[in-house]
Amino acid sequence: MKLFNYSDLSTADIQKLVQRNVDPANEIRTIVDEVIANVQQHGDKALYDYARKFDKVDLSNLYLDKTDLEELAESVSAEQKAALQTAYNNIHKFHKSQVKAEDKVETMPGVTCWRELRPIEKVGLYIPGGTAVLPSTFLMLGIPARIAGCSEIVVCSPPQKNGKVNAFIAYVALLLGIEKIYLIGGSQAIAAMAYGTESVTKVDKIFGPGNQFVTKAKTIIQSTTTTAIDMPAGPSEVLVIADESANPTYIAADLLAQAEHGIDSQSVLVCTSAQIAQQALAEVEKQLPVLPRAEIAKLAIDNSYIVVTSNLDDAMDFSNQYAPEHLILATERWKEITGFIINAGSVFLGNLTPESAGDYASGTNHTLPTSSYARAYSGVSVDSFVKKITFQHITREGIQNIGPSVEILAELEGLHAHRNAVSIRNSN
Amino acid sequence: MKLFNYSDLSTADIQKLVQRNVDPANEIRTIVDEVIANVQQHGDKALYDYARKFDKVDLSNLYLDKTDLEELAESVSAEQKAALQTAYNNIHKFHKSQVKAEDKVETMPGVTCWRELRPIEKVGLYIPGGTAVLPSTFLMLGIPARIAGCSEIVVCSPPQKNGKVNAFIAYVALLLGIEKIYLIGGSQAIAAMAYGTESVTKVDKIFGPGNQFVTKAKTIIQSTTTTAIDMPAGPSEVLVIADESANPTYIAADLLAQAEHGIDSQSVLVCTSAQIAQQALAEVEKQLPVLPRAEIAKLAIDNSYIVVTSNLDDAMDFSNQYAPEHLILATERWKEITGFIINAGSVFLGNLTPESAGDYASGTNHTLPTSSYARAYSGVSVDSFVKKITFQHITREGIQNIGPSVEILAELEGLHAHRNAVSIRNSN
Repeated sequence: MKLFNYSDLSTADIQKLVQRNVDPANEIRTIVDEVIANVQQHGDKALYDYARKFDKVDLSNLYLDKTDLEELAESVSAEQKAALQTAYNNIHKFHKSQVKAEDKVETMPGVTCWRELRPIEKVGLYIPGGTAVLPSTFLMLGIPARIAGCSEIVVCSPPQKNGKVNAFIAYVALLLGIEKIYLIGGSQAIAAMAYGTESVTKVDKIFGPGNQFVTKAKTIIQSTTTTAIDMPAGPSEVLVIADESANPTYIAADLLAQAEHGIDSQSVLVCTSAQIAQQALAEVEKQLPVLPRAEIAKLAIDNSYIVVTSNLDDAMDFSNQYAPEHLILATERWKEITGFIINAGSVFLGNLTPESAGDYASGTNHTLPTSSYARAYSGVSVDSFVKKITFQHITREGIQNIGPSVEILAELEGLHAHRNAVSIRNSN
Repeated sequence: MKLFNYSDLSTADIQKLVQRNVDPANEIRTIVDEVIANVQQHGDKALYDYARKFDKVDLSNLYLDKTDLEELAESVSAEQKAALQTAYNNIHKFHKSQVKAEDKVETMPGVTCWRELRPIEKVGLYIPGGTAVLPSTFLMLGIPARIAGCSEIVVCSPPQKNGKVNAFIAYVALLLGIEKIYLIGGSQAIAAMAYGTESVTKVDKIFGPGNQFVTKAKTIIQSTTTTAIDMPAGPSEVLVIADESANPTYIAADLLAQAEHGIDSQSVLVCTSAQIAQQALAEVEKQLPVLPRAEIAKLAIDNSYIVVTSNLDDAMDFSNQYAPEHLILATERWKEITGFIINAGSVFLGNLTPESAGDYASGTNHTLPTSSYARAYSGVSVDSFVKKITFQHITREGIQNIGPSVEILAELEGLHAHRNAVSIRNSN
């Protein structure tokens, strides 16, 4: 990890440090465009072909049904089931709290406005497979979809070589009351859910992380169809703000947890104590070699850096410019600084709150804005699965009260039929 | 207006009727790509050039300042000021009600999760100019931006031939406490706000309607930069559900109010009474010719249609498939059917609630999802100008409670460093 002193950095230096590449490799666009066109044109047949080509499996059916899932889930141990249940309960409890009734507001006598929530009818969840099997992602997307009340939840996950999904994915499906998993991976899964095929329902919004191909497919369908997406996604990242009250051993463990995700993951430490920074760095060297994914983590750590600042204000300023997906406040003084956080996806407070708790089971969602998207985007929540529709009701008194203003405003915008729609109601 | 009987329509017929074109004319992409590249490369100079080329004006300065705006606003009459103030007050009152504190939730003993709102720091508002001068749009975007607390609000609007903006736009700027309006229109305005120039601040999210070029520019920057957009935009539309308790004169006025927006606007009537439908159609013929924008409205009406159903259930079913931007329930029985609305942007209840009230002054926002985007998107609200950041705090007791589950889940996903970040906190 490279080490920088904040006071030595120019605005341009900081700009460069916080910059992430958000629009990589245009050549993958050509490949993805072709996959989308092919799925759009040939439907299920294209999906079977891609399973053979990309997943190396000859599927006899495009999906697993409830019986298949129950059979697969048998190998999940009681201990694992209990852990998944704990995660389920905590995520459910926190997300349930996000649903709030809205107030009716009488903006002027006889004019009442309010919002009502409606679930997005048909949603698609993409659950990555391959080496990264992520039942936790399935919980993070399935639980808010269920709470929102979406009437159709389409789930796609790439098939393993045996033409199945992993046992944990199967078990989570049953926990969520989902009785079908489509064996479709990559950009072909996104295309199938955006356009629909003989077997796959066209959905209104697609959720879920994935590789570069999946991400590119999501951004393409977002700009060319009416199907929405949760958010653009990039490599995962953490920024740790630490002071002299931090524990360097914990910091190192948190940096490495991030680094093991992938070689393009980034772990940033912003520290007010050069000594703690050095100790954390030494701890990283110590903890890294024994990790099963040490090779991946090492490359990610090489791609990461430390910034030493003279106070927590500067540290927070740097963090806000970075706009991290995960922000850990490794300081006993966290209460004093949370108010200054402007840009972050999810925040972990104090020395006993590891990011991995939020990845699995604290209750917060782990589908979060990366690559500085936290400047404008929020993580996934129940909000992501609903629309808030506005309603208004006007009485006879109300139309008399509001009428003259609407008439004048329509007039000054040159929209006489707009004016007329009010005048006509006040004249007869 | 073409008239259809719902019972005669096949699923495919309905599919065709509710279909709107969302990805038109690829040739405009080439033009917009070039504008974006040019602004990115040449900054302010490109903006001056485009003002000469597209707006036919030689600008001496890229923006109007407070003095300019105050001078322009002098021509707004007291009556017009009062109407704008009424709109301001109602919109402010309703949008203010959307800001709610979130609960802290203890998901398990010692593990607490919550969300906090933070304004998006830098937002860009695009206010169309030319023939359609829309001070109302400026209110609809500026008020929630102010309530959210955005620290920088960049406003772009195309210059008129005199190198100024319209007096009403200037007055609304002063109402909102905005002291600068950039004289930039079209896709060059979107590019300037997405990339920043010498004069224009790069923003985190861009809002506002516009022509095809503006819309295309927004979808391009959404998929190639970290700047977000409010939503994709298409031509405006209304769907009126009416029964025998509706007033055909009001229905006609509402259909025409929509139709005068532009030749690609759509006005759909779904009616349980063939008689009311015929009367409304006759009223359209009567009211249309006297409108100043009759030529535009006629073309839009020709492009619109009526569906006669045998009951309100079928009418609502059609409406949900159409997913209208504006939905008017022209029936005394509106209370019985609002619960069945699934897809709509904003809803107008009963015979005395014209859509134009919501366009200007009822309090709801008029920046709404068109083109069936209402299936997955909500209209603009204070939510659109904030992020909801998740926070979590774990105590010593909490990490002991949650630790074992996180360890098991990290293990089954093969992420040992994730496991370690918890174990290490429970072991020393």
